[in-house]
Parts: sequence; structure tokens; C-alpha cells
Amino acid sequence: MSDKKQQLREISELGEFGLIDHITKDVKLHHKNTLKGIGDDAAVINHGNICSIVTTDLLVEGIHFNLIYTPLKHLGYKAVVVNLSDVYAMNATPKQITVSVAISRKFAVEHMEQLYEGINLACEHYNVDLVGGDTSSSLTGLAISITAIGEAKKEDITYRSTAKKNDIVCVTGNLGSAYMGLQLLEREKEIFKTNPDFNPSLKGYDYILERQLKPEARKDIIKILKELKIKPTSMIDISDGLSSEVLHICNKSDVGCKIFQDKIPIDLNTEKMAEEFKIEPLIAALNGGEDYELLFTIDVKDLEKIKNQASIHAIGHIADKEHGAVMITTGGQSIQLQAQGWNQMKEE
Amino acid sequence: MSDKKQQLREISELGEFGLIDHITKDVKLHHKNTLKGIGDDAAVINHGNICSIVTTDLLVEGIHFNLIYTPLKHLGYKAVVVNLSDVYAMNATPKQITVSVAISRKFAVEHMEQLYEGINLACEHYNVDLVGGDTSSSLTGLAISITAIGEAKKEDITYRSTAKKNDIVCVTGNLGSAYMGLQLLEREKEIFKTNPDFNPSLKGYDYILERQLKPEARKDIIKILKELKIKPTSMIDISDGLSSEVLHICNKSDVGCKIFQDKIPIDLNTEKMAEEFKIEPLIAALNGGEDYELLFTIDVKDLEKIKNQASIHAIGHIADKEHGAVMITTGGQSIQLQAQGWNQMKEE
Repeated sequence: MSDKKQQLREISELGEFGLIDHITKDVKLHHKNTLKGIGDDAAVINHGNICSIVTTDLLVEGIHFNLIYTPLKHLGYKAVVVNLSDVYAMNATPKQITVSVAISRKFAVEHMEQLYEGINLACEHYNVDLVGGDTSSSLTGLAISITAIGEAKKEDITYRSTAKKNDIVCVTGNLGSAYMGLQLLEREKEIFKTNPDFNPSLKGYDYILERQLKPEARKDIIKILKELKIKPTSMIDISDGLSSEVLHICNKSDVGCKIFQDKIPIDLNTEKMAEEFKIEPLIAALNGGEDYELLFTIDVKDLEKIKNQASIHAIGHIADKEHGAVMITTGGQSIQLQAQGWNQMKEE
Repeated sequence: MSDKKQQLREISELGEFGLIDHITKDVKLHHKNTLKGIGDDAAVINHGNICSIVTTDLLVEGIHFNLIYTPLKHLGYKAVVVNLSDVYAMNATPKQITVSVAISRKFAVEHMEQLYEGINLACEHYNVDLVGGDTSSSLTGLAISITAIGEAKKEDITYRSTAKKNDIVCVTGNLGSAYMGLQLLEREKEIFKTNPDFNPSLKGYDYILERQLKPEARKDIIKILKELKIKPTSMIDISDGLSSEVLHICNKSDVGCKIFQDKIPIDLNTEKMAEEFKIEPLIAALNGGEDYELLFTIDVKDLEKIKNQASIHAIGHIADKEHGAVMITTGGQSIQLQAQGWNQMKEE
């Protein structure tokens, strides 16, 4: 850490994805059974026909969560869910997790109990085993690192890189609500700061708050797709906003795509809140992040099968690369999608 | 975090191991293929005859490392090694790792390059694949979370819980040197703080410094044991000092043991440094920590096979539980071993 500062490059020049690309560009794989390394929702390790799916996330206090308005039980639950979401995005079933936490001195045994209550609840709900971890002190805030391990047959696994021209682009549930929940919590926090006697008015906002504080991973969708005998041609989970994830699929699959504004599912509660905040709900859906819905592509022959699925929405199709990744607005305009998703490393 | 402080229990009451026991006491396993959950060096997941071995560690700036005297490249290397050591302790071969890092704003691209140079070097040296991870901002210091995944046949895996009466207790290499390396670095740091023009005198101390800053995991021992056709009856890696690890094996295996002071391997460099610091070298070996040697037990019939192995030392034997875990001093005294190992959470 003693280098002269003037010769150094700021990490914000690269952003999170740029930094990852940069530092992992020389990574070599040694083992034939490493079917997929860096560059998807999860890594894939082959053990014969059954594969392990491995994904990991590190959540840091003040960056990913704020303990002023995040109950520890919810935080524990969410920390597990965001990892399981990555496993489902590979069309796999999560089976085990490890949980490491670093805690500051302000933490008491009861705080850890609350955190692990949420972790255990998520394990019950998603039928996964907590199999290990690490516990450490921290000089400052709380950090939680979770690794999830799933299982899938080799032929069932879906990657980001295998979407092909004319495939239908689908999303599950609705988008932007977790982001609006965050805006609400941040607003109430600011008011609370200037007036500690103030009672936050969160009544009637249950839906968006739950989407932010206690999101669920789309375990049900993986089951539905199996029942419908659909194997998505590509899949990713929506953690950084729809735009960013569509671009990941297009870039990795070397294709373009066309999605339609009026097909993007946005809940009424999200629209209501966005109106109150004078935010365009579409922006929350495209760039908001933390939805933990699934974005996937299916062969056009499977379109008929999803017609009656209320939780699956066809929003567009895959096109030639030359067309780029565009959204057609309700006014008929074609707009290039941009990854303005949640990028802490470029933020100021 | 709004609970009234007076009703809360301090985490220091429990210590790290106590806290882990407490928060994981209600953990239930759902999957038959989870052969081992919490409570060993690593978890074991069965995929037929081949098992995955999974272990994870979280290293936090100011707790586990000090960037004043730890080069980032060494830190990256060591962060990988400490995880691989846990995989070897299961008599397994590490194959993949994931690496998550949280970095503060003082970090530049070049710092990340140095850290990953060390990580990649360890991957090359130990023949493991870096398959994933996460990169995040941190409001404060650096945090590194690594998960290592290894492979072993079900019948080859060694646990902490299977030592039996009359087994021979063995350790590899020598103990206490990493701890003495740390003492030296801490001393030079203090002098440097009061006099920044001071040039640290680290010459001639290469061995103990390397043991602290760039330790190696005992990949070679796993190979030797295979060649000798020895399957240890139990095994653990030495990260918290010999005492603590012997007690883990005794507690998990429900046995006692007797080890002999004069058999505990301590390097001359360690003794020299200990003398300078007026520390008993034995204390460094018993309680120092960060040795990353292996502690294992073998059936008495295998004792002959290790006679010519310079890096394996028989230091005692397993006894009935009633005898407790004791060390026989050079003077013939019997002393109960105590886990005074590295326990950040009980430290003040």
C-alpha cells in the first residue's frame, strides 16, 4: 500500500464488471471437470452426470444494507435468497450453503441469533442445508459472505451464453418494486434523522417493502418450467436491473434483442410509489435492481406453453447482433438498452 | 439494533467456538447427500462415490492481517492457502475456489492486481481453478472471503471424530514459527510508528517471516500418506495452535490423549526468535496458531511406515477419555492441554 498515488488507476474507471474482467483475464482453468468458471450466475463442476453449481456473494454493511431499517432476521433471510437466486438462474436446485460473518463489537449474541433465525428460515423454506462457515470479528461493520451449492444434471443447466436468434425473451413476476421499497426506506430514514420522534409511515406499502427487505428467489419457476417441459435456451437472475441482465445475455450469447416497453411487468404498487417519488416506473424496472426475478429465453416453439402462466411474461425476442439490444417504447421509438444498473463502484 | 443494551449478552462471553455452537445448535440437515455439515475442517457432499469437500474462510483487515507489513500479493496467496489447508485436512484434493473481496476507496486497480497475482500464483502452485466470486465496495477495510472445493472418494475422507484409543498422534513440519514471525513484524511496526525513518531489520529472519506471510498447505503430506498406504484415523489442520486442535480431535472423537513435550517439533529459527522475545517456544507451538501443518492420528500398525518420513513426527497417542488431553513435560509432569489458541472474540 506504499505505492505513489499519482501512478495508480482509480477502480471507479473500470466499475465492478470492468474490474472483474480485468483481474480475471489471466485466469486459467486446470481441471476438465470445471465446466464453467467465472462469467455466469454460478460456476459448474462436473461429477459424472450430476454437476455442482457454485455461487457466492459478499454483503457489506453500508454498501448492500443499512441496519437502521433492515431487521437482522430479514437480512439473514435475504442474504441466503440472493445466492439461491443465482443457483435457480442456472436451472438448478440449491442444496447446501456456507455462511461466513464478520461482526463488530456492537453486536451481541442476540443480534447473531436474529441474523441466524433468518438464515435458518430461508434454509427451511428453500430446503437447503447450512453446512459450514466462518465467524470473525470486524473492526467496523457487519459483512456476510454466503456460498450456495446446487445440483443439476449436466444437460439441464442453462447458461447466459446460449440464447439464439428468434428466441422469446421472458421475465418472471414484476420489476422495480424492490427499488421503490428502497427509495421509501431511504426517505423515511432521512426524515427520522432530522426528527427522531417521527414515526415512519410505512403502512400500505407492505408489498414494495417486502420486495426490498424479504425478497424470494423463483424456486417455483424452475418447477413450472420442468413441468412444462421447457428448457430455457439461456437464463440469468435479475439483480442489477433488467437492462443490465439483458445486455449480459446479449453479450455472452453474441446476439442482439428487441424488448417492448409495454410488455415489461410493473406492479401497481410500484407505479403508485414511483408516481409519489416522481420517478418513471420504467426506470425502476430497467435499472432498479434487487428484483431477484428470472430473465430467460425460450425457443419460439415453446411460446404456446407459457401462454397461461400468469408469472411468466414474454417481453421480446432475440435478434441478430447488428441490431443491438433495444427497447421499443410505447411510442414506437427504438432505444438502445444501457447497463445503468446498480454499480456501487462507479457511484460517487 | 434497537434492543436495550442491558439485556444483551456479550459475544466475548462465548468466544468464537462457543458462538458457532450456540447459533448452529438448531441447524437441521435436509439432504441425505450432505454427509458432513458444520463441525469439521470442511463439509462433505456426496455425489455417488465422489464427494465434494467444501470449506470457507473470511479474512478481515485489522483482525486477520495488517496491510502495513503484509504485501497484497502475499495476502492473496495466503488467503487461498488457509482454505486449501482445510481441504487437505479432510485427506482430499482441492480443485476449485471462489474469491470474494470487499475493497475500500483507498484501493486502486494496481492493488487489486497485486492481490490477484498472489491468488493466481496459489492457484497455479496448488493446481486449483478460480471459478467465481464477488467484488464489492467497503466503507472501511479490505475483506476477503474464499470458498475452496475439493474432491475425494467417500472412503478416503478423514474426519476429526474418528480417532480411537492407542492411535498414534502425528504432526507435520514444525510449529510456532508463524507466530514468532508475527511477533517480529508487530515489533518492527511499533518501532516504525515512533520513528518512520527507521529501516526494519528483518534480515536473517526469512524463515519465520515466510511462515507468517506466505505459508504453504501440506499438499505433499496427503501424497506421502497415499504412497505409504496410510489412511489417518482422524485429521485436522493446525490453524489455532496445537493445543486447540488436539482438543478438537479429542472432543469430537470422545477420547483422551497423551502428547510428549520433547516430541513437539520446533524449528531452530523459532527457538532463536522466542529467546529474543523471552517467550517459551513451547507456548508458541501450543498456542501460536497459523502453522497450517496437519495433525492426524494413525493406527499403531502404521507407525513403522512413517519412521523414515522427516516431515512427520509422532508426538503421542490417543488414550481413554477419562485421562483427558494431557502433555507430559520433559520433567515428567502431566499438564492438561487448554485451548488458548487464537481467539479474537475473547481477546480484549
